Amino acid sequence: MPRDEIRVTYRIETSGDPEALAGKIASDQSTGTFTELPGETAAVRARCAARVVGIEPLEPLNVPSIPDPTGHGPYRRADATVAFPLEAVGTDIAALLTICVNGAYSVRGLTGLRVMDIDLPPAWACHPGPQFGIDGSRRLMGVAEGLIIASIIKPSLGLLPEETAEAVRVLCEAGVDFIKDDEKLMSPGYSPLAERIAAVMPVIHEHEQRTGKRVMYAWGISSADPDTLMRNHDLVLDAGGNAAVVNINSIGHGGMSFLRRRSALCLHAHRNGWDLLTRHPGLGMEFRPYQKIWRLLGVDQFQINGIRAKYWEPDESFVRSFRDCMTPIFSPADRPLPVVCSGQWGGQAWDTYARTGRTLDLMYLGGGGIHGHPMGPAAGVAAIRQAWQAAAQDIPAEVMAKEHPELAASLRKFGGPGGSPS
Amino acid sequence: MPRDEIRVTYRIETSGDPEALAGKIASDQSTGTFTELPGETAAVRARCAARVVGIEPLEPLNVPSIPDPTGHGPYRRADATVAFPLEAVGTDIAALLTICVNGAYSVRGLTGLRVMDIDLPPAWACHPGPQFGIDGSRRLMGVAEGLIIASIIKPSLGLLPEETAEAVRVLCEAGVDFIKDDEKLMSPGYSPLAERIAAVMPVIHEHEQRTGKRVMYAWGISSADPDTLMRNHDLVLDAGGNAAVVNINSIGHGGMSFLRRRSALCLHAHRNGWDLLTRHPGLGMEFRPYQKIWRLLGVDQFQINGIRAKYWEPDESFVRSFRDCMTPIFSPADRPLPVVCSGQWGGQAWDTYARTGRTLDLMYLGGGGIHGHPMGPAAGVAAIRQAWQAAAQDIPAEVMAKEHPELAASLRKFGGPGGSPS
Repeated sequence: MPRDEIRVTYRIETSGDPEALAGKIASDQSTGTFTELPGETAAVRARCAARVVGIEPLEPLNVPSIPDPTGHGPYRRADATVAFPLEAVGTDIAALLTICVNGAYSVRGLTGLRVMDIDLPPAWACHPGPQFGIDGSRRLMGVAEGLIIASIIKPSLGLLPEETAEAVRVLCEAGVDFIKDDEKLMSPGYSPLAERIAAVMPVIHEHEQRTGKRVMYAWGISSADPDTLMRNHDLVLDAGGNAAVVNINSIGHGGMSFLRRRSALCLHAHRNGWDLLTRHPGLGMEFRPYQKIWRLLGVDQFQINGIRAKYWEPDESFVRSFRDCMTPIFSPADRPLPVVCSGQWGGQAWDTYARTGRTLDLMYLGGGGIHGHPMGPAAGVAAIRQAWQAAAQDIPAEVMAKEHPELAASLRKFGGPGGSPS
Repeated sequence: MPRDEIRVTYRIETSGDPEALAGKIASDQSTGTFTELPGETAAVRARCAARVVGIEPLEPLNVPSIPDPTGHGPYRRADATVAFPLEAVGTDIAALLTICVNGAYSVRGLTGLRVMDIDLPPAWACHPGPQFGIDGSRRLMGVAEGLIIASIIKPSLGLLPEETAEAVRVLCEAGVDFIKDDEKLMSPGYSPLAERIAAVMPVIHEHEQRTGKRVMYAWGISSADPDTLMRNHDLVLDAGGNAAVVNINSIGHGGMSFLRRRSALCLHAHRNGWDLLTRHPGLGMEFRPYQKIWRLLGVDQFQINGIRAKYWEPDESFVRSFRDCMTPIFSPADRPLPVVCSGQWGGQAWDTYARTGRTLDLMYLGGGGIHGHPMGPAAGVAAIRQAWQAAAQDIPAEVMAKEHPELAASLRKFGGPGGSPS
């Protein structure tokens, strides 16, 4: 790919001609308007005109992605790649999104448009990327290798600070490496962040002094106001904390950029709202381009659901997301730690291990699977460790469970390794 | 509505029971997880549990909004209103979005979900809202009453700073009240913002000295980095400028919040990317709740397309958007100036005037309709003024055109009053 171009691949769907529509996107999103203008000279076009550089036809659809009550199919589809001159876009993420992504959704005559990928030239390596990523996360947690086991405070909302502190004490004793606030918990009236920190940090420090183990706690610092976001960041840092949960879509690109440039915390991204962007296969955006943008902005740990998640996402989509996160954009250091989560209790270890490249470079997050274990949270953590140990050694679940009562109890409560807790 | 609640109305679509799914959203988005937990006590639920307070069944669909290859219809629908305790959410926009909007899109078993409205209690009046709005915009432009006529620099991209300055000179002389950078123009290599300002501001100042008319120019200051955004803001302010184009979705809530709290400029919002949120009628979000959030964050002028826009948006959607903008959230001062745009050339004046409440409290933005007028840009502006004068006096287009050659030329080139330039 030329070094002076940005290339975007769109999946275009229309009752008309996908190639013509690709050309219209290239024109509208660079130098064109609805009528010919004297100022659109050859020099202007040479400087800024986008152009279609590839078309790959796909099977047409009978049912359009967006209802088309006055039209009819077949709805023809193609993956069209458009090259935008770097000179016209620059390296600002707001310019990339406005020029290369957002405007395309407004074009008349589409019944579907999905951004499949964005290829960025080396000039885009100017963005900060993760401050900690995989290696830094491991260093801060003191887990040099192997699986990282995480949990989340439950119930999601409603606990008073001292109740949260008690839940943290239980999870620390259960043996997790990482605990997080639920993404929905930030700084509500009944549990202001400062009071929650004051209640919880002594539990973490005390556990560290007693055991030598420093559990990473990710605090819900999100605010749509970057000044508040930074005040929250500073509260965590001043109390000796080292991580935060960031609701990336809710704070937006500006909030994330502002935070990253000032942050001393490991930033654990929750992508709530992403489902709207991606759930309809003919609309929105693949996870691949989406995660590139947020990685460049500085995400250290990325929640990406898991096998048999409790949400809508199919397993194949999770597997692709995992591989996307593991693929360097410009260097291996820009890879975030993938956080496998949602309805996880250990039974998915075999499939996860097999389908994500037999790696243990991941954080495995159990919520209800740990809190709800019939023998208690420590048994929940033990069951997860047993499941992953068995998966990595190709030992079937039933065999492992015979000598490990915690895993056996999980299997009974949450279903076999093919079961789902949803 | 109780003062201690936030109410969100979702249009739910499912092959199952919409009411049950509404209950699941209320539970998942407050205190629930996938398994029963000892900590979810009555006290916790009283503090934070959301509840369904209204269900209005709608006609079922045969074709699901999101493909459902292994299932079958009918796909039942309902508008469900869920009340969230203010105590659980607070007044932060990131919390509102994460708890009340984003999570709902991830629920399993939906074939469609659209956020129809968000009702906010008086505590939410803490947000700054527009700094200028309708009255402030009029004051800065020196247009105390009547239609505000605007244009945009074309071609969108590719002009050098001195070429932009020449386009501005032409538009000033043509008699517009407002000019803007295309939303895709921010600070690219061939036209850095500082150089563009240095070339253009003398033209605006000179025009003001000669005619007494201060044309408002909105500069493309957007950046995903709030520090750069503020540097751009300051460049404009230091040069005597008074307005900016802001790509709200590209800078995100954090960028907009940061800017508003420090801004001395009138903020003209471009909503590129919104189409993805709203184009499929069964998914995403209505404009109504969307614009409330951005108004609270401080949008002064809101681009909302127009009748017979060149984009996909149907006229009825534009009319609803106009009314949404004109409806106070907490006070009339939180209303932005509606900017009617996209393929506008004057021919839509009659329908626009009739369908938006016979008001002239709007900015009417012509791009190609002014630049591409066969008698030149001044005639393009004159034709728009003639069209709106006729519309306000109930004079048909053909009658007005008989004595107004500029309007007559527009009608010939761009189509009759029912015509569309697309």
